[in-house]
Amino acid sequence: MFKNILIIGCGMIGSSVLRAVITQKICKQIYIFETNLKHRNQIRGINKKIVIIKKLDEKIKNIDFVVISTPMSQYKKILPHLNNFLSNKTLITDVGSTKKNVGKLIKQKLSKKLNWIMSHPISGSEASGPKYGSKSLFKNKWCILIKSKNKKFLEIKLARFWKKLGSKVVFMQEEEHDKIFSVTSHLPHLIAYNLIKTAQDFQKNNKTNIVKYSAGGLRDFSRIAASNEIMWRDVLFNNSKNMSKIIDLFIKNLKGFKADINKKRNLLLLDKLKKSKKVRQQILLLKQDIRKPDFGREN
Amino acid sequence: MFKNILIIGCGMIGSSVLRAVITQKICKQIYIFETNLKHRNQIRGINKKIVIIKKLDEKIKNIDFVVISTPMSQYKKILPHLNNFLSNKTLITDVGSTKKNVGKLIKQKLSKKLNWIMSHPISGSEASGPKYGSKSLFKNKWCILIKSKNKKFLEIKLARFWKKLGSKVVFMQEEEHDKIFSVTSHLPHLIAYNLIKTAQDFQKNNKTNIVKYSAGGLRDFSRIAASNEIMWRDVLFNNSKNMSKIIDLFIKNLKGFKADINKKRNLLLLDKLKKSKKVRQQILLLKQDIRKPDFGREN
Repeated sequence: MFKNILIIGCGMIGSSVLRAVITQKICKQIYIFETNLKHRNQIRGINKKIVIIKKLDEKIKNIDFVVISTPMSQYKKILPHLNNFLSNKTLITDVGSTKKNVGKLIKQKLSKKLNWIMSHPISGSEASGPKYGSKSLFKNKWCILIKSKNKKFLEIKLARFWKKLGSKVVFMQEEEHDKIFSVTSHLPHLIAYNLIKTAQDFQKNNKTNIVKYSAGGLRDFSRIAASNEIMWRDVLFNNSKNMSKIIDLFIKNLKGFKADINKKRNLLLLDKLKKSKKVRQQILLLKQDIRKPDFGREN
Repeated sequence: MFKNILIIGCGMIGSSVLRAVITQKICKQIYIFETNLKHRNQIRGINKKIVIIKKLDEKIKNIDFVVISTPMSQYKKILPHLNNFLSNKTLITDVGSTKKNVGKLIKQKLSKKLNWIMSHPISGSEASGPKYGSKSLFKNKWCILIKSKNKKFLEIKLARFWKKLGSKVVFMQEEEHDKIFSVTSHLPHLIAYNLIKTAQDFQKNNKTNIVKYSAGGLRDFSRIAASNEIMWRDVLFNNSKNMSKIIDLFIKNLKGFKADINKKRNLLLLDKLKKSKKVRQQILLLKQDIRKPDFGREN
């Protein structure tokens, strides 16, 4: 499909792309640029054919596909290098979790001759680093691609790439993407972080250890709140306007629940608690989660 | 250990007690009182020796242990019957998720000759009904027992019972229990319900279907928010004072995060996001959750 692929940033997601690309025999040669020494050593073990480059400006000929999978806050640093050594024959993509900010950066800083179409594979976990990557990470997962102007041919090529990795591809506008994922991903992460902070504050105020009783619900949130802080700082900063709005709606609803509880609004509360079951049923129907109770977790 | 056990309310938790009691050969005869016809039919299939009684006043001789595992809002109805047909030789317990309210009810309505020591096994899932019960549900889980006055002998007996079922037993005061679990269990459930409601409101306001993109975080919350609404209505009403306080702390913290995001407080936000990893590490060290990333879920 490609001759030479360059993966910039090879953590959990980048190394999963790497592993899948090797398994699917998608290219002849893979170049990796990764600044973390420990990660570089882990990557070397994956496949002997990988060439780890030391500088982004290094003379590599005919790179036809670039996947940027660093934290989004690194894109600014990387972009001038791309302008230097890539040509109009290269397809560039990234895997960042917000898109309007990246679109803006591309418009402002990317050389007009270069082609960058944004991707967002909806996959990953609380784990970070190439150790946790997997060749099947993208299998049966959504991958959102952002519509570009006059790049139909490259859009199709990029969609084919993600489909080869097992993803279900859908195209969106930047704004639509950032709005939807503020609700389905960014708010849940922030809420998990906030719940854990609240539990920590409670522990401090009450001088008591409550973590050992976390199996009653808290433990689920602690998993999400153990995600990479650099990545999530970037997401929250980049999607701040959508976040502000959805946080306000969340607080309004929570105050509503508080009033229901304090005023013992029996039927209203029951009705609200009951309605959320529908969402779970939809998620299971859409095969977006495992059907077994408690995620099939045995602990 | 006992001759005759009576389980009142035989859903997910009650039927797990039933199954564990059979496996562990804890008694000679088991009586079940369950008002749901469908559930009764499911229970009959578990073991032929089970006797399903139709009225709580039925003349059953020498019941020496009663486990009440109905929703807590049923306790008021059940209590007068207990006064009628039980003796001072019976040990009564319940499995309700809040304790101060139950303690109050016992003080006010239970005959002084009867002995009720409260239990709270920290186990269960989003599933309801005897179909989902399991003989190993309580294995390696905490079971909180509430300290009683002058009932040392019965406390030891009840602790032995839960230990036979595999639980780790700890004694607490009612107030301490309700405060701790408002943070580790009740707030996480309310927050999950509130997040799903917020996502539903967003869908309505934006006339868009976002549920299919829930793998980015929302799906975890949808599981908890699919829990039994009767049980959770009871919990939230019964623990309203602790809930009010912890909701306020949660909202205060969330407003803090919102300000951090909007004011781009880089180091402060990073520090807050980083700190919550410690809780996950503690939870894993205490074996309160599965160690594999993403709960080892393959979806």
